[in-house]
Amino acid sequence: MTSTTSSSASLPARPPRDSFWTRIAADIADAIARGVYPPGQRLPPEHALAEQYGVNRHTIRRSLADLTSQGLLRVTQGSGTYVEEFAMDLALVKRPRHHQRMALAGLRGALSVVAASTVRATATQARALDVAARSTLLCLNVIGDAEGQPLHFSERFFPLPRFATLEDVVRETGSITAGFAAHGVDDYTRRDSRITAQMPEPTVASHLRQPVTRPVLFVESVNIDTAAVPIEYARTWFAGDRISLTVTHDE
Amino acid sequence: MTSTTSSSASLPARPPRDSFWTRIAADIADAIARGVYPPGQRLPPEHALAEQYGVNRHTIRRSLADLTSQGLLRVTQGSGTYVEEFAMDLALVKRPRHHQRMALAGLRGALSVVAASTVRATATQARALDVAARSTLLCLNVIGDAEGQPLHFSERFFPLPRFATLEDVVRETGSITAGFAAHGVDDYTRRDSRITAQMPEPTVASHLRQPVTRPVLFVESVNIDTAAVPIEYARTWFAGDRISLTVTHDE
Repeated sequence: MTSTTSSSASLPARPPRDSFWTRIAADIADAIARGVYPPGQRLPPEHALAEQYGVNRHTIRRSLADLTSQGLLRVTQGSGTYVEEFAMDLALVKRPRHHQRMALAGLRGALSVVAASTVRATATQARALDVAARSTLLCLNVIGDAEGQPLHFSERFFPLPRFATLEDVVRETGSITAGFAAHGVDDYTRRDSRITAQMPEPTVASHLRQPVTRPVLFVESVNIDTAAVPIEYARTWFAGDRISLTVTHDE
Repeated sequence: MTSTTSSSASLPARPPRDSFWTRIAADIADAIARGVYPPGQRLPPEHALAEQYGVNRHTIRRSLADLTSQGLLRVTQGSGTYVEEFAMDLALVKRPRHHQRMALAGLRGALSVVAASTVRATATQARALDVAARSTLLCLNVIGDAEGQPLHFSERFFPLPRFATLEDVVRETGSITAGFAAHGVDDYTRRDSRITAQMPEPTVASHLRQPVTRPVLFVESVNIDTAAVPIEYARTWFAGDRISLTVTHDE
């Protein structure tokens, strides 16, 4: 209780949502959603927005900072503030399929294998895949993109020898689904996902082509075959600036 | 493709998952999960861990940095590295109820109203609640905690006049569910959630008692009554260090 009281002291009398800068941020967000400011477009300069909304530039700056932290805007030093390309909702669904998903969004999507190796299962990986610790796994490092823009980078682990030729098929087709199909898995589903916010490691940031100073969504997930046997354990980093994950609960 | 090739160049020959530091990080994470290092406990000093694992301190440092970025560890300047308290999974379910959820985890949970006001609906809020823009809403700023540790801070918007006395009931009972019940809403469910990673505003960080330098999970959600009418639009920030959100897809 004390904590609550003390922290409430640091709260403005009127809730943030109702302050000028948040109203303006919401208004600009709506303009972006309605396509008034399309992806990639440069916003009007601060002084113009300040004039338009009849507030000072400090207020506008705070609104733009909020939208930038939400990943809707991108500030390019000396050049201005731009609407982020591919600020995109990805639904956390039972049957995530990258190509279908991108096609539905009217985008050309691709999965690219950037590294592959065989590793010995750590305790965590073994638990997730229900195999013995230190047993052999195929590890694929994969980038999923839309129109060449990286959306996510993942480390995906598959039990061996079950999926012996998966790497070749995925490299050839750019499709994990095709890789599974080649091993007699005609359907598979996401069993569960665990989502956290992280600052990206330099390698991950470079794959996502985003600064290390911007947070990313980190998702650990397990896919299972129709017999509920785990076939894939994945650690996926989503470009924080470009991606939001959505969950529909009546799914 | 070029991008993929070039970025793959920055990837170590063996995938990160299989490197010493990630194996050690996974091993320590398992030890935390198994309770070998309980929440709040100080880890052995770097040199001791280096000796235990037979690696140099640089490797141990990288492992600990990874676990810190995952929110499993907390570094206290000059004092050492501690296992984060309340590193907790919160399931994104159809019927989120803070008290029940905390009780199930064996924790005393509370919802505390730190600010309340009436506001005029922004376009976004109006769309979410299916009311006219600029119509009047009740706004509650709420902290949800476990054993006094803040887990999330939220701005919650409720249509007026429908929920005229909701604030009083929630302040009195510490329960949103009780507030809804007092207005004839015997059951309600989460319709959808939208999850992004953010750096917290100073106000949010102070409510969550975490540094502004640590990312948070930001969730926009809509709750509906049994007639599928929106009754609550919430913006919730989850303490990045303490919370992960989980989704079970066969739910």
